[in-house]
Amino acid sequence: MNRDVYQEPLVSRYTSREMQELFSEKFKFTTWRRCWVALAEAQHELGLSLVTREMVDELKSHIEDVDFELAAKKEKEIRHDVMAHVYAYGKQCPRAEAIIHLGATSQFVVCNTDLIIQKKALGLVKTALVNVIANLASFARKYKEMATLGFTHYQPAQPTTVGKRNTLYIQDLLMDLEYIEMLEKQLKARGAKGTVGTQATFLELFGGDHARVRELDRLVSKKLGFDTVFPVTGQTYPRKLDMKTAETLAGIGASAHKFAVDMRLLSNLKVQEEPFAKKQVGSSAMAYKRNPMRSERMTGLARKLMGLPANFAATAANQWFERTLDDSAIRRMDMAQAFLLTDAILKLYVNITSDMVVYPKQIEKYLRTELPFMATEKILMACVERGKSRQEMHEVIREHSVAAGLAVKEEGRDNDLLDRLAADERIPFDREELSGLLGNYQEFTGRATEQTEEYLDEVVQPVLEKYREMIGQVDSSLKV
Amino acid sequence: MNRDVYQEPLVSRYTSREMQELFSEKFKFTTWRRCWVALAEAQHELGLSLVTREMVDELKSHIEDVDFELAAKKEKEIRHDVMAHVYAYGKQCPRAEAIIHLGATSQFVVCNTDLIIQKKALGLVKTALVNVIANLASFARKYKEMATLGFTHYQPAQPTTVGKRNTLYIQDLLMDLEYIEMLEKQLKARGAKGTVGTQATFLELFGGDHARVRELDRLVSKKLGFDTVFPVTGQTYPRKLDMKTAETLAGIGASAHKFAVDMRLLSNLKVQEEPFAKKQVGSSAMAYKRNPMRSERMTGLARKLMGLPANFAATAANQWFERTLDDSAIRRMDMAQAFLLTDAILKLYVNITSDMVVYPKQIEKYLRTELPFMATEKILMACVERGKSRQEMHEVIREHSVAAGLAVKEEGRDNDLLDRLAADERIPFDREELSGLLGNYQEFTGRATEQTEEYLDEVVQPVLEKYREMIGQVDSSLKV
Amino acid sequence: MNRDVYQEPLVSRYTSREMQELFSEKFKFTTWRRCWVALAEAQHELGLSLVTREMVDELKSHIEDVDFELAAKKEKEIRHDVMAHVYAYGKQCPRAEAIIHLGATSQFVVCNTDLIIQKKALGLVKTALVNVIANLASFARKYKEMATLGFTHYQPAQPTTVGKRNTLYIQDLLMDLEYIEMLEKQLKARGAKGTVGTQATFLELFGGDHARVRELDRLVSKKLGFDTVFPVTGQTYPRKLDMKTAETLAGIGASAHKFAVDMRLLSNLKVQEEPFAKKQVGSSAMAYKRNPMRSERMTGLARKLMGLPANFAATAANQWFERTLDDSAIRRMDMAQAFLLTDAILKLYVNITSDMVVYPKQIEKYLRTELPFMATEKILMACVERGKSRQEMHEVIREHSVAAGLAVKEEGRDNDLLDRLAADERIPFDREELSGLLGNYQEFTGRATEQTEEYLDEVVQPVLEKYREMIGQVDSSLKV
Amino acid sequence: MNRDVYQEPLVSRYTSREMQELFSEKFKFTTWRRCWVALAEAQHELGLSLVTREMVDELKSHIEDVDFELAAKKEKEIRHDVMAHVYAYGKQCPRAEAIIHLGATSQFVVCNTDLIIQKKALGLVKTALVNVIANLASFARKYKEMATLGFTHYQPAQPTTVGKRNTLYIQDLLMDLEYIEMLEKQLKARGAKGTVGTQATFLELFGGDHARVRELDRLVSKKLGFDTVFPVTGQTYPRKLDMKTAETLAGIGASAHKFAVDMRLLSNLKVQEEPFAKKQVGSSAMAYKRNPMRSERMTGLARKLMGLPANFAATAANQWFERTLDDSAIRRMDMAQAFLLTDAILKLYVNITSDMVVYPKQIEKYLRTELPFMATEKILMACVERGKSRQEMHEVIREHSVAAGLAVKEEGRDNDLLDRLAADERIPFDREELSGLLGNYQEFTGRATEQTEEYLDEVVQPVLEKYREMIGQVDSSLKV
Repeated sequence: MNRDVYQEPLVSRYTSREMQELFSEKFKFTTWRRCWVALAEAQHELGLSLVTREMVDELKSHIEDVDFELAAKKEKEIRHDVMAHVYAYGKQCPRAEAIIHLGATSQFVVCNTDLIIQKKALGLVKTALVNVIANLASFARKYKEMATLGFTHYQPAQPTTVGKRNTLYIQDLLMDLEYIEMLEKQLKARGAKGTVGTQATFLELFGGDHARVRELDRLVSKKLGFDTVFPVTGQTYPRKLDMKTAETLAGIGASAHKFAVDMRLLSNLKVQEEPFAKKQVGSSAMAYKRNPMRSERMTGLARKLMGLPANFAATAANQWFERTLDDSAIRRMDMAQAFLLTDAILKLYVNITSDMVVYPKQIEKYLRTELPFMATEKILMACVERGKSRQEMHEVIREHSVAAGLAVKEEGRDNDLLDRLAADERIPFDREELSGLLGNYQEFTGRATEQTEEYLDEVVQPVLEKYREMIGQVDSSLKV
Repeated sequence: MNRDVYQEPLVSRYTSREMQELFSEKFKFTTWRRCWVALAEAQHELGLSLVTREMVDELKSHIEDVDFELAAKKEKEIRHDVMAHVYAYGKQCPRAEAIIHLGATSQFVVCNTDLIIQKKALGLVKTALVNVIANLASFARKYKEMATLGFTHYQPAQPTTVGKRNTLYIQDLLMDLEYIEMLEKQLKARGAKGTVGTQATFLELFGGDHARVRELDRLVSKKLGFDTVFPVTGQTYPRKLDMKTAETLAGIGASAHKFAVDMRLLSNLKVQEEPFAKKQVGSSAMAYKRNPMRSERMTGLARKLMGLPANFAATAANQWFERTLDDSAIRRMDMAQAFLLTDAILKLYVNITSDMVVYPKQIEKYLRTELPFMATEKILMACVERGKSRQEMHEVIREHSVAAGLAVKEEGRDNDLLDRLAADERIPFDREELSGLLGNYQEFTGRATEQTEEYLDEVVQPVLEKYREMIGQVDSSLKV
Repeated sequence: MNRDVYQEPLVSRYTSREMQELFSEKFKFTTWRRCWVALAEAQHELGLSLVTREMVDELKSHIEDVDFELAAKKEKEIRHDVMAHVYAYGKQCPRAEAIIHLGATSQFVVCNTDLIIQKKALGLVKTALVNVIANLASFARKYKEMATLGFTHYQPAQPTTVGKRNTLYIQDLLMDLEYIEMLEKQLKARGAKGTVGTQATFLELFGGDHARVRELDRLVSKKLGFDTVFPVTGQTYPRKLDMKTAETLAGIGASAHKFAVDMRLLSNLKVQEEPFAKKQVGSSAMAYKRNPMRSERMTGLARKLMGLPANFAATAANQWFERTLDDSAIRRMDMAQAFLLTDAILKLYVNITSDMVVYPKQIEKYLRTELPFMATEKILMACVERGKSRQEMHEVIREHSVAAGLAVKEEGRDNDLLDRLAADERIPFDREELSGLLGNYQEFTGRATEQTEEYLDEVVQPVLEKYREMIGQVDSSLKV
Repeated sequence: MNRDVYQEPLVSRYTSREMQELFSEKFKFTTWRRCWVALAEAQHELGLSLVTREMVDELKSHIEDVDFELAAKKEKEIRHDVMAHVYAYGKQCPRAEAIIHLGATSQFVVCNTDLIIQKKALGLVKTALVNVIANLASFARKYKEMATLGFTHYQPAQPTTVGKRNTLYIQDLLMDLEYIEMLEKQLKARGAKGTVGTQATFLELFGGDHARVRELDRLVSKKLGFDTVFPVTGQTYPRKLDMKTAETLAGIGASAHKFAVDMRLLSNLKVQEEPFAKKQVGSSAMAYKRNPMRSERMTGLARKLMGLPANFAATAANQWFERTLDDSAIRRMDMAQAFLLTDAILKLYVNITSDMVVYPKQIEKYLRTELPFMATEKILMACVERGKSRQEMHEVIREHSVAAGLAVKEEGRDNDLLDRLAADERIPFDREELSGLLGNYQEFTGRATEQTEEYLDEVVQPVLEKYREMIGQVDSSLKV
């Protein structure tokens, strides 16, 4: 690590080695060579006599040993990275030199390589995502019955269960997964299209044979691992695709952010916590703190990720005609950042959900405090069943609830709501009947347990089954 | 129109009446009533004795005649819009008063209504989008063979055809259409879930009968026109869906923006123009101008539309637990704006593409000027075929091209590139041979014509066929 | 209110009448007339014989009585709003008809009017902002000594005081106020510059007299209420200014958002609340809730406001040459929205801060619970003073703190940290000495009280003094 | 350069060494040590006996020789970077070990260091900005008289001068400079404030002496190079400041973006170009092209820069109470990116403006073509002077202009507007008189030349004078 100049923290601190490598120069430039090999081989196979099997073989034998220094030197001179690498490749392949990049434009290697990288990166993202879902599903099943206070407006509401709450995080992530699958369908090869997408030079090379040129496009793409190829392009593949890619990843960011913020609130409530490393220091000054640092980090990383789609939208929207280069520098940064951020977030998400801590005693404490308040809806319903007007009862109960709530806050007293209600003659129940209506807080969770079961069985399990080979394939250990 | 206070320009200037109505108070509040009817009817059908057929019928007979003033007055008093409308509905339905909204929480009507509005609005968007695609497809087919200068870096590149260029706009829009179809699958009912999504009150009402409560959720949703219902929710449907909705619409914005900017550049080049109304004034001071005002307007509207998804992402990401109300005011504005902007943009897009003007003479003028430059790649290929090194020839041609280009710019002279090349002995062709290589500019368009045909026949036509009943169903006349 | 089509909620629900009127058609078009009067009068005063005093007087007598219908009809015909209003003005002023808008371009009225609106709107914003600061200053002074738990990572940290915490909100708002003052300096007139900013037509009119044309620019601006005028412009004033305006307002959004989120957390903690109207309904199903709805609304409105600067940046960055019209529709919406949102937010902020409720008993409860933990830093310091290594003591205390914390969470027990420390021989204090170190929680607030006093006296008071005439000038009653 | 993993392109490709170093680990961690030295020294000077002069001297002697490996190893263990560096510093300074960081919280070093870095980085930005302004001012002065076609709607409008157009870019940048100066005033030290900003631990250390603790804050800040210190803080300096910093830098992005887009359009028009390196390759396939690659790159970099303020706004708006850590990872990336992007943009901007190429013959060609059109406003004015109605003449001229314009586009004919006007009897001039009205295009530039002179002399020159020592201090050579 070079400490003299700025280093990308996503690499030095937060992401997986696999993702870092996909966006490395090494992977990029060897993939360029793979593109040149695919092109030459397809040209050869489609009968272009200029390109011989020997040339193709020579090219194949020099895919990995890129002479980076030579290419960099040449680029400095001619200010053109692709031509610089054509030059360096040619130096290693004297026989094939003249036919490297034959008929192609820079974007032949650049776009196809970008798409290959994105496809692989999306695979890593999908794997991590599936693992988060698997973790949350286990957690939700384990705690499907445990009643806990629900919150709306971050004010106590009816109870739900710990498991049920976690199905909501899963539901968000399953939507992300569906959009990943959708994106996989959109990710096509850019193929062999030429300078402005007309394949003019290839048509020239193939003596005007449209069928062979069309086949070249398909064959090159297939050799590069794509089932489909964009039927039409300008110089590059449509930048609109990048926008969709960024949105798909940002969707994961939003899901993770919501979860992380909830974790941070739960942590304050002391009812649920992220795993805490044994030697971890809470803060330099306050040794006792158990700060939800991973969730806080996830929040920040997700915020950045959610900020990226707008850039890609602007680039797509501002490409002029067959292509302008205002896409280059920004995509170079933002595409890498989008995937690296997603990688970092999912690594954290797997890490946290692998071992979340729940404190049942604390959960119970909150439920006990709010129980009389929670019962108000049940009481309201019972009053309506006894023929009272919903409106009127709502008002009566509201008044007493507010008064009881104030007593707690202002005087630190216990909740005396039931006494107040029993003393009001408009309420058609006495104190004992009211107590009877309360029951225990488990009764207030409605169908939360059943919903959790149904959801896990009917919706989540089939997905986990489909991707079962991915489960357990993520290293979620953290560097810092 | 009230001229004393600010009026939303989207309504007063840019959008269709249909879209404006979907986001009106009238549509919202009558739909709330439809939700209450669906709930009561489903409760009745599932055997809840509290709710009688008479009550349901009474409710049904007062769907359209909302007493807005009464509701507004009540809301001012109690600061709660749903309870205010329950009150106003109850005043008109004395028999059903006690069972309106029975077991429900505000979000029962608010969320389901929002989803109904979005579904209908998405339908309008889809119709308009299909019409733009149909227009562009006709245009592309008509001009599939007309050679025109391609541009990369907004510098002359190889020629393409007018039709081919327009397939790229279509391809962007087809991606938007696919994402609309995807979104339609995501748009499920929120159903009857209760305060925090546990259906607790409904379970109470139905005496603990899980099967009937589960069926209530499905049945209410079906009555409201939904095939599917979110299996789990907090208080509201997942705000993540809104993010996807906004992204889907913003995608249309990006596609339209790219087209509009190209139109504005074409307009400067005097090769293609948007339709121009006969009495339209170019500018107050410069009467002769034909400003591409609709494309400029589209650009601005699309810019705003593309700015909205970030808001929805932030809202989804910051919802705490079962729901917080920081979503309310912003969604009230942004969901309407997103659809209204899309409506305005597509209305313009249909309008412009209905009657775009092409100036073939101008197109030819540009091609003629650039022809010798355009031929350089062909010459380069020919040199390579004669056994020359691609690198060296590239350099030689580059030098002469730059010199010829400079002569044009600096001295206003004609393009003398071929003379320069012929005079260079490294080039293995004489002047005559070089001229022979040039041919006409049609030859430089490669497979542009064929690509256009293939694309329209194989990709676009099936889609237009699928949605053929939508074609012609858009009023694209403009107010201003 | 028209319930048949979408209505802007900012107008129907959230903003002040004054702000709504500034962005009305009425204010806009009468201001256009003021611009035309200023131009004609300045032309007359500078000796342009074409323009007579009678004409100017005629124009002056028809500033308020705009014939909106006639102008709208004309606009529909010629698609040009300024020319339509020139026409309508001319119909009312037959004598002056020929000289209305003489030598001007549309942006003469459009830009100058926009700047006048923004200046006045900024005045309303400033007034509201000063009132929030005044409210917070009173509140901070009142509670300057009241100890309360500080939070970092939303975990209990050292105590601060209620007043001190509120100085941080004030400090944010004072930064906003400084940027408003900065913006006021940037807000110059666009003046009389002509089509592309060269004043060519005016120079023609004045027979080539540069001095008089330069003076025309200044004189018109002065008549419109501006001390300064942009020295150079294209067709419009620089769109960069709009970006700064939006950023300045968004700054207020960010400040308000931070405050509002804190309020929502405080509300959950039951230690501080926004004022609650007597008849306000917490929720339709949960009558007892005291939801922090205004703070939640502020959060959402602020989120939207913070999303707007990016639009203005994009518009400024994408203006081509002397001007393109992609700024028109988007500014029409976004400039109004930016000011209306700010108005709505500050109205809420004034409303909430006028009467915030504090619950001292609850505050104490939290302090008591955390007191032993809070003392750890004090104990750490005392250990260091006794010659122990900071590192080692930090580690020892950390271990016991974590254990004590776990006991609370897992077993619901009281905090036994001091017992644990006293029992550890590495700690150079016994149980009694440790208790002695604790003291009361007031002692842990450091300089919070003094900082609050100093800050209010030295920094805030001078500002409030400077703007004292604004205090009390805001109607913060809410419609919904 | 590590080619195996992702490398930040801003560092490897676009930015100055100076800026890269400011955001390096080396600069950060040595500055942390400077903060610790400043604290210890101030404590010593204010009479804290625990801290001796020897300790301070020992600390001073180990500022530069940070043992990065040891600190990294410790951080991995305890997951806390500041404590890890305290540990590593302590190992090198055994005598001072116990008093390093005495009474401080992590943010003491982190925040103060961040502010120091930002201050220095802002200095680099300012220097580069001043140099761009100086370049543009020279260019504007040189071309102050050269008439060129003005554009509105990117349609030919009245002429302006090349110099005048460039004053608009300068005006944007001067606004940026004013906001930099404003920001410099806002950039205060965070000082010595303690965990939650109350200085509690320092007050403890100084035995309750408020005056000395207040002085400690000031003195430490002064030693770190700050004239002012934030009077109140939570744990960190206000994140709102970061928002302002990002906005200030994004302002430069917007200014540069507008310039760059204009350059790209000018380049298409072949009237103005960025400097072109002799060996630069236009494209791999089209050797003759002179692509405006630097302006395109500037566009993309600026787009990214303009996307960053929203992140900072969200972070500022979502900080809970005295501080949450969701600011950490995102600021680590975004603050560096904001400054590095600005550095890259300004480097390009200096580079391009150092040697822009103008093609007068091309400029003339465009003017000649549009001259008759341009004269329409002059003709309109002359008609009005002859007593004709502005409205009517506008209409007449509009009709003929549109017809003449169509003839050019549709038939490739010359502009016959004057003939058409002369033949219309409503026009009170014959052909000869109309020709006389035309004059040469210089006459149509109004006050453009004079405005340019006045602006440069009165507004720009004083600023350049003020910052004259900065001029020439930027290395604008490019790596790629």
